[in-house]
Amino acid sequence: MEIFVYRSGAERVEEGFTAEQLPSLLQDRSLVIWIDMERPTLDDDRLLLDLFKFHPLTVEDCRMDRHHPKVEEFPDYLFFIVHGIRTNTTPERFNTVEVDGYLGPNFVVTYHHEPFPAIDYIKQLLRSTPVPCQRGAAFLLHHILDRIVDEYLPALDDFDERLNKLEENIFSTTRPSNRILEEILSLKRSILRLRRISSKQLDILYRMSHGEFRLISGPALPFFRDIYDHLVRIADLAENYRDLITGSLDAYLSVISNRLNEIMKVLTIFSAIMLPLTFIAGVYGMNFENMPELHTRYGYFVVWGVMIAIACLMLLIFWWKGWMGSGRD
Amino acid sequence: MEIFVYRSGAERVEEGFTAEQLPSLLQDRSLVIWIDMERPTLDDDRLLLDLFKFHPLTVEDCRMDRHHPKVEEFPDYLFFIVHGIRTNTTPERFNTVEVDGYLGPNFVVTYHHEPFPAIDYIKQLLRSTPVPCQRGAAFLLHHILDRIVDEYLPALDDFDERLNKLEENIFSTTRPSNRILEEILSLKRSILRLRRISSKQLDILYRMSHGEFRLISGPALPFFRDIYDHLVRIADLAENYRDLITGSLDAYLSVISNRLNEIMKVLTIFSAIMLPLTFIAGVYGMNFENMPELHTRYGYFVVWGVMIAIACLMLLIFWWKGWMGSGRD
Amino acid sequence: MEIFVYRSGAERVEEGFTAEQLPSLLQDRSLVIWIDMERPTLDDDRLLLDLFKFHPLTVEDCRMDRHHPKVEEFPDYLFFIVHGIRTNTTPERFNTVEVDGYLGPNFVVTYHHEPFPAIDYIKQLLRSTPVPCQRGAAFLLHHILDRIVDEYLPALDDFDERLNKLEENIFSTTRPSNRILEEILSLKRSILRLRRISSKQLDILYRMSHGEFRLISGPALPFFRDIYDHLVRIADLAENYRDLITGSLDAYLSVISNRLNEIMKVLTIFSAIMLPLTFIAGVYGMNFENMPELHTRYGYFVVWGVMIAIACLMLLIFWWKGWMGSGRD
Amino acid sequence: MEIFVYRSGAERVEEGFTAEQLPSLLQDRSLVIWIDMERPTLDDDRLLLDLFKFHPLTVEDCRMDRHHPKVEEFPDYLFFIVHGIRTNTTPERFNTVEVDGYLGPNFVVTYHHEPFPAIDYIKQLLRSTPVPCQRGAAFLLHHILDRIVDEYLPALDDFDERLNKLEENIFSTTRPSNRILEEILSLKRSILRLRRISSKQLDILYRMSHGEFRLISGPALPFFRDIYDHLVRIADLAENYRDLITGSLDAYLSVISNRLNEIMKVLTIFSAIMLPLTFIAGVYGMNFENMPELHTRYGYFVVWGVMIAIACLMLLIFWWKGWMGSGRD
Amino acid sequence: MEIFVYRSGAERVEEGFTAEQLPSLLQDRSLVIWIDMERPTLDDDRLLLDLFKFHPLTVEDCRMDRHHPKVEEFPDYLFFIVHGIRTNTTPERFNTVEVDGYLGPNFVVTYHHEPFPAIDYIKQLLRSTPVPCQRGAAFLLHHILDRIVDEYLPALDDFDERLNKLEENIFSTTRPSNRILEEILSLKRSILRLRRISSKQLDILYRMSHGEFRLISGPALPFFRDIYDHLVRIADLAENYRDLITGSLDAYLSVISNRLNEIMKVLTIFSAIMLPLTFIAGVYGMNFENMPELHTRYGYFVVWGVMIAIACLMLLIFWWKGWMGSGRD
Ligand SMILES: [Mg+2]
Ligand SMILES: [Mg+2]
Ligand SMILES: [Mg+2]
Ligand SMILES: [Mg+2]
Ligand SMILES: [Mg+2]
Ligand SMILES: [Mg+2]
Ligand SMILES: [Mg+2]
Ligand SMILES: [Mg+2]
Ligand SMILES: [Mg+2]
Ligand SMILES: [Mg+2]
Ligand SMILES: [Mg+2]
Ligand SMILES: [Mg+2]
Ligand SMILES: [Mg+2]
Ligand SMILES: [Mg+2]
Ligand SMILES: [Mg+2]
Ligand SMILES: [Mg+2]
Ligand SMILES: [Mg+2]
Ligand SMILES: [Mg+2]
Ligand SMILES: [Mg+2]
Ligand SMILES: [Mg+2]
Ligand SMILES: [Mg+2]
Ligand SMILES: [Mg+2]
Ligand SMILES: [Mg+2]
Ligand SMILES: [Mg+2]
Ligand SMILES: [Mg+2]
Ligand SMILES: [Mg+2]
Ligand SMILES: [Mg+2]
Ligand SMILES: [Mg+2]
Ligand SMILES: [Mg+2]
Ligand SMILES: [Mg+2]
Ligand SMILES: [Mg+2]
Repeated sequence: MEIFVYRSGAERVEEGFTAEQLPSLLQDRSLVIWIDMERPTLDDDRLLLDLFKFHPLTVEDCRMDRHHPKVEEFPDYLFFIVHGIRTNTTPERFNTVEVDGYLGPNFVVTYHHEPFPAIDYIKQLLRSTPVPCQRGAAFLLHHILDRIVDEYLPALDDFDERLNKLEENIFSTTRPSNRILEEILSLKRSILRLRRISSKQLDILYRMSHGEFRLISGPALPFFRDIYDHLVRIADLAENYRDLITGSLDAYLSVISNRLNEIMKVLTIFSAIMLPLTFIAGVYGMNFENMPELHTRYGYFVVWGVMIAIACLMLLIFWWKGWMGSGRD
Repeated sequence: MEIFVYRSGAERVEEGFTAEQLPSLLQDRSLVIWIDMERPTLDDDRLLLDLFKFHPLTVEDCRMDRHHPKVEEFPDYLFFIVHGIRTNTTPERFNTVEVDGYLGPNFVVTYHHEPFPAIDYIKQLLRSTPVPCQRGAAFLLHHILDRIVDEYLPALDDFDERLNKLEENIFSTTRPSNRILEEILSLKRSILRLRRISSKQLDILYRMSHGEFRLISGPALPFFRDIYDHLVRIADLAENYRDLITGSLDAYLSVISNRLNEIMKVLTIFSAIMLPLTFIAGVYGMNFENMPELHTRYGYFVVWGVMIAIACLMLLIFWWKGWMGSGRD
Repeated sequence: MEIFVYRSGAERVEEGFTAEQLPSLLQDRSLVIWIDMERPTLDDDRLLLDLFKFHPLTVEDCRMDRHHPKVEEFPDYLFFIVHGIRTNTTPERFNTVEVDGYLGPNFVVTYHHEPFPAIDYIKQLLRSTPVPCQRGAAFLLHHILDRIVDEYLPALDDFDERLNKLEENIFSTTRPSNRILEEILSLKRSILRLRRISSKQLDILYRMSHGEFRLISGPALPFFRDIYDHLVRIADLAENYRDLITGSLDAYLSVISNRLNEIMKVLTIFSAIMLPLTFIAGVYGMNFENMPELHTRYGYFVVWGVMIAIACLMLLIFWWKGWMGSGRD
Repeated sequence: MEIFVYRSGAERVEEGFTAEQLPSLLQDRSLVIWIDMERPTLDDDRLLLDLFKFHPLTVEDCRMDRHHPKVEEFPDYLFFIVHGIRTNTTPERFNTVEVDGYLGPNFVVTYHHEPFPAIDYIKQLLRSTPVPCQRGAAFLLHHILDRIVDEYLPALDDFDERLNKLEENIFSTTRPSNRILEEILSLKRSILRLRRISSKQLDILYRMSHGEFRLISGPALPFFRDIYDHLVRIADLAENYRDLITGSLDAYLSVISNRLNEIMKVLTIFSAIMLPLTFIAGVYGMNFENMPELHTRYGYFVVWGVMIAIACLMLLIFWWKGWMGSGRD
Repeated sequence: MEIFVYRSGAERVEEGFTAEQLPSLLQDRSLVIWIDMERPTLDDDRLLLDLFKFHPLTVEDCRMDRHHPKVEEFPDYLFFIVHGIRTNTTPERFNTVEVDGYLGPNFVVTYHHEPFPAIDYIKQLLRSTPVPCQRGAAFLLHHILDRIVDEYLPALDDFDERLNKLEENIFSTTRPSNRILEEILSLKRSILRLRRISSKQLDILYRMSHGEFRLISGPALPFFRDIYDHLVRIADLAENYRDLITGSLDAYLSVISNRLNEIMKVLTIFSAIMLPLTFIAGVYGMNFENMPELHTRYGYFVVWGVMIAIACLMLLIFWWKGWMGSGRD
C-alpha cells in the first residue's frame, strides 16, 4: 500500500505515509489523497471496511478477480472496476487485468492483484509534478483512467501488425495448413473479447462523462469525455479488426478451394493426355494375327507422330480453357 | 414441506413446524419464515391458495413446469420463477430446473418439483448459523438466489473443458467424422440455450436490484446487484462460448477441406508419376515390326533410366510446389 | 352467427338468439354476450356497421384476410386480429387462420372465415358451465384467446418431432439427396414464419396485459399476463427451432463434404494400388530383345511377389493415415 | 399541371383550371384542391416558391430525384416524399419512382417526373365521384397514398412467382450454371432494396397515423393507420422473400455440392472397376518365358471369368454403399 | 491561416487579415468571420487557446488526428469533428481526412492538416459571392458541411463502377484467382469503413438539425436537415454496396465450385471413355496360347468397332446427363 498526499498549493506530492496516518489525513478535506493497493493483503481489505466504511460487497468485489467493468454510486463514494491491458497480452491471447477502485471527495483508492504499468507511470508522474492532483480527486482519477486506456494502444498496434502479416501469409503460402486456421481462430476470439470488454468500458465512461455522478461534475466532465472519445476509437478499431479477421477466414477458405481447383487441373491435364496415348500404345500391343499397320515400314513412327499430335492438341485445349500458363484469359 | 423460523435476536433458526402452525407464525411480523416445498402435493397448492391467498394463476404456474424466468409484483407479495442448474446437466444437454417462489414481508416460499442442491445448501447453512435470516426476508431470498446462481459455475467450467477438448480433437484427428459434428451441434444448442436462459434471468435480477419492487429496497439492493453482477459474468461467458463453438464449427469444416486437398494431392502425385511411366512401357509393348529401339543392346536399360528420371522430375516438381514434405515453402 | 348470453347469476349460458334480438340484448349492461360469426355473410358485416357502429375500416379488415395480428382501441370498443393454428397445418407448411374480433363493455364478437377448433372448444365449454362468463366480457375474451394460444402446442410438438427425425435422417442416410435439402428449407421457412407471427402476437398480448386498454383492466390483467407467458414460451421455442434447423443445414452440408472425402479416399486407394502394379506389368510386357529378367526361371513369380508387397505396403500406409478401417487414430 | 377543385356539397369535381386561377382558389378555405404536377417545368417550381411560399429546400427536393421517403412538418403545410412502384419494375431490377408532395389545410400538391399509374387511377376516380374529396384534404391524401401502396401488390406477386420458379429450377436443372447464380443475386438485391424502402415508408406512415401532425388528425387517423397496416404486410412479405432467397442460395450451393459428389462417384466406380481388370490383363501381357498359366488350355477363359467376377463384386459393393441405383438405403 | 470577413450589407467578403486583427474583429458581433487553419502551426493552437479561450481538450483534439466524428456543446461555442473525403481515396482503400472546427456566434473556425477540396471550393465561392455569409455563422457552417458531404458523391460513384466491373469479372473470368479475392476483400473493408463513418456523421447531423444546439436554431434547421438527408442517402448507398459486395463474395465462391464441377466432369469423361478401351486393348495384348479371337480374320477390326461403339455410348450417356454441350437440359 502506497499513499500519496497533495496539500493544496504545495510544490510536491508527499509520499511514505502509513496506514495509521490515514484517519487524520482523510479528515482534512483540502488534501488530495491517493492510496494504491498493489497485491493487497487481508489487512488492506479490513482497512477498506473499517476505516473507509466501504460496502462489504464492494470489498468482496475487490478481493475477487474476474468481474466485469462496472461503476456503482454510493452516498459518499463511487466504486468502479475497469480492465487494463496485462503486460504479457498477445494478439492470440488477449488478456486484461482487473483494477478496482473508489473515488471519494478527497481521495482515490486503487486496488489490483498485480503490478500494472499504467499505475507505475502515474506514480512516476506524481513524483515529478503535482499537476495531476491540483484540481482535486476526480481529476486525479481522470489521469489514472486516461493512462489505463492509453495503454491499450500498443496492444491494438500488435493486432494491426498481426492481422496484416496473417493476410500476407494466407495469400502467399503454398500450403494452407491447420496452423494458419488455428491462428485465425485464436485471433478472432481475442478480437471478440477486446470488443466486448471495450464496449463495456465505453458504457461506464459514458456514464462518468455525462454528469450522472455527483463526484464527477462540472469542469471534470470534458476530461472524462476525452477518455470516452479514446474508448470510442478503441471500440471502432475492434470492430474494424473483426471485419479484417472475418475477411481473413473467408480468404483462407477460398484459398483452399482455389488450391483444390489447381490440384484437380493438374490431375485432369495429366490424365487427359496420358490416357489416350496409353490406349493407343495398348492397341498396337494387341496380338491379333491380322493387324496390317504392324507390318508397314513406318507404322511405328507414324504412331509416335499421332501420339505427339494428340498430346499437343490436349495442351492447346487446356491452354485455351485457361487451365495452363496465362491462357486465353 | 419444511418450515424454518427465525425469531428476532435468536441464536438459532427453528425447524420442524407443521402446516397447522403456519397461520399464527405468519401473523407475527417480527419473524422471518422460510417455507420450502419440495415435490409439493396438491395440499401444498391449496395452502398457497387458501392461507397465503396467492393469485390462483401463480399457483398454477408453480404446479406446471417449463415456464420462463419471470417476476411479478402483487400488492402483498412478489412472485418469481428462476431456473437453477439440474444435477444431471451436461454440456451436450444443458438442463435447468424451475424454482418458483414468493417473497412476502416476513416470509419466503420456494416451490420445486425435484430436490435441488442450492436449496439443500441453504438449509444446511441455516442449521449452522442464523445470519442469513437476521436482516429480513428479502436478505434471505438474496441468499437463496445467490446460491442458485453460484451453482451455474461448475456447469460453466464443464463447458469450458469440453470446448477445449473438442477443439483439440478437431485439429488432431486424422478422420473428421460425423461424430465430431454431432458433438459440435449439440454443444452449440446447449450454449444457445444457456445464453437465452441467462439473458432472461439477467433481466429479472436487473429489475430486482434497481428498486422496482417495494419488498426489495434500500439496503437489500446492493446484495441483489451482487447476484446481478454474477449473472452478467455468466451471460458474458455464454457469449464467449458461442464464439468458441462457432469457431469450432468453422475449424471442423475447414479441416475437412484441408483433408480433401491432402487426399487429392496424393492421388495426383500417384497419377502424374505412374501414368507417363505406364505409357512408356506401353509404347515398347507395341508389336510393330520395325521398332529400332527394341533391337539395341541397352534399350531396356535406357528406358528404365528414362522412367526413373521422369519419376524423379515429377517428385521434384511436386516438392517444389510444396505438395510434398516441407516443400519450397 | 351464433349468440351466447349469460345473465348475471344464471346457472346456464343461453343460446339460440337471432340478430333481431341483439339490439335489446346489447342495451342490458348486466349481460355478457358472445357473438361468433363463422363464415360471415355480408349481412353480418352490415350488422357490425349499423348496429354496433364499428369503424368501417375495422369491418373491412374483418372481411379481408391476410392481415397481421394487431389491436386497436376505439372509444367504446377494442378491435383485434389474432392468428390461430389452421387445422391442416404441417411443419413443412405452417399455416395460420385469421380471427378478427371486438371487445365491448358487455360483449365479445369473433369473426372468422372458417371453422376453428379453439372456438368450437369454447362453445362446448359454455354449454357445460357458465364460469367463463361470470366475471364479464374481458374474462370471456381471455378464455377465447387462451384457448387459441393453447392450440399452438400440438403444432409445436409436431415441429419438435420432425426436427428430431430430420437430424436422425441426415446422419444416418447413405445418400445425401436434394430431397433432404428441400425438407430442411421448407421447415426453415415454416419456423421463420412461426417466429414472426408469434413475436407479433407477443407484442399484442403485452399491450393487453399491461393495462394499456380501459376495457381490460384491474383483476383481468393477470389473466392476460398468463396468456402472454404462454406466448413467451412459444416464441422461445420458435427461437430454439431456428437454432435446430440452422444446425441441421450445417450438418447436412458437412455430411456432404464428409461423403466426398470418403469417395475420394476410395478412388485414391484404388489408384495408388493399381497404377504401380499396372506399370510393373507394363514393364515386363515390353518387347525389348535384351531383357534378362524375362529369361530367369522364377522371374514371373518374383514379380508377383513384388506386386503383392507393393499392394500390402500401400494398404498399410493408408491404414496408418487413418483412411481405412479404424486406422491408427 | 392539372388542377382538381371540389366545392363543398358539389356533385362533381371540377377540372381545367389554370395556374392563374390558383391564388383565388387557394384563398377559399371551403374548397378541396388537388394540384398534380407531372413532368413539372421550372415555372411549376417557381409557383411552389412564390405562390405557395413553400420552403426553397423542399422545392429543391422536389426537383431532384433519388431522395428517400420522408415527411417534414412546416407551420402551414406538410412536405412528404414517398416511393411508388415504377411501371417497368421487375423482380430482378426492382425500381421505384419518387413522388414528392405537400398537404395544406385545403390542398394537396403532388409532384413527379414521370406518369404514374396510381395518380392516373385517382384522377379517373375523381372524374366519376367526388367522394374522396368530401371529407377534406387529408382524406384526399389518404386516397392517393392508399393507391400508391396498393400498387405494390402486383410487384410483390411477381416476386412470389419468380421465387417459386427459381427454386423449381434449382432443384430440377441438370446443370447448375452461373446464370442461375446471377438470377439469385439480382433477386436478392431487389428484395433487400424492397425491404429497405418499405421499412422507411413504414416509419413515415407510422408517424402520419399516430397523430404527430396537426394536419392529419382525429377522424383521419384510422384511415392512415389502414395504409400503415398495408405497409406492415408489405414489409413482412419482404422479410419473407429474404428468407426464401437466402434459402435458394443455400439450395443452389448445396445442389452444386451434391452434383460434385455424383460426378466423383461415377469416376470412382469406373476407376475401381477398370483399374484392377486392366492390371490383370497387363499381367498376362508380360513376356516372361516361364508363365505356366499361359499354356493351360482354358487359361484365357478363366481370366475372363475372374475379371467378370471382380467387376460384379465391385458393382455389388458400390450398390451396397448406396452409390448406385437405389442402393441399400 | 486565412481569414474571411463579411460585414453586414457589404457586396464582397474581405480577405487578407492577420492574426493580430482578430481580437478586434471578433468583438464586432455584426460580422461573420471564417478562419481556416490549413496545416496549422503551434502558434495557431495557441491562438485558439488564448484568444478564443477554447477548451484545451478540444485544441488537443484538433492537433491530433484519427478522431471520430463528434459534436460537443460548450457555453459559447460548438466544437465538431467531421470527416471529409481525402483526394487520393480509392474504392480499395477508402480514406477520409479529419476536419475539426468551432462555431461561435459570429465566427466559424476550420482546422485541418492537409489541403481539402471542399474548403477550397468554399473559398472560391466566397470570392465570387457573399451569399453564404449573409445569414450568419450557422449558415456559413451549413455551406461548408454541405460541400464536405457533397464531395462524397464522386467517391460513391467510384464504388458503384468498381462493384459493377468486379461482378462482371467474376462471371466472365476463366481463372478464378486469389487476385479477385483480394479485391473483393479490400472493397468489403472499404465499404464497411464507409458505412461506419457515415453512420457516425449521420448521428451528428441529426443532432445539429433537430434543434439540440442553441447556436443552430430556427431558420437554420431545415438547411442542416438538408445535409442530413444527403447523409441518409450516403448511408443507404453504403448499405446497398455492402449487399453488393456480399453478393460478389458469394458469387466468387460459387463460381469456384462450378469450375471444380466442370474440371471434374472433363476428368470423368476422359477416364470413363479411355479406361474401358485401354482394358480391351490390354485383354488382346495377353499372351495366352489359346485365344481364339486372335486368329480370326477380322478380329482386329471388330475390336476397333467395339471400342468405337463404347466411346460413342459413353459420350451419349454424358450428353444425356447434361455434362457435355447443351445436353438434354
Ligand atoms: Mg477485484
Ligand atoms: Mg487518452
Ligand atoms: Mg490525454
Ligand atoms: Mg469476455
Ligand atoms: Mg470478457
Ligand atoms: Mg480528446
Ligand atoms: Mg458468411
Ligand atoms: Mg412451476
Ligand atoms: Mg454469487
Ligand atoms: Mg456471495
Ligand atoms: Mg429455453
Ligand atoms: Mg459482487
Ligand atoms: Mg459475438
Ligand atoms: Mg379478416
Ligand atoms: Mg394458456
Ligand atoms: Mg390456462
Ligand atoms: Mg407472415
Ligand atoms: Mg401462467
Ligand atoms: Mg438464437
Ligand atoms: Mg424529387
Ligand atoms: Mg390499401
Ligand atoms: Mg383501401
Ligand atoms: Mg434504396
Ligand atoms: Mg385495413
Ligand atoms: Mg427473418
Ligand atoms: Mg484533429
Ligand atoms: Mg448537399
Ligand atoms: Mg445543396
Ligand atoms: Mg472507421
Ligand atoms: Mg434536400
Ligand atoms: Mg442490408
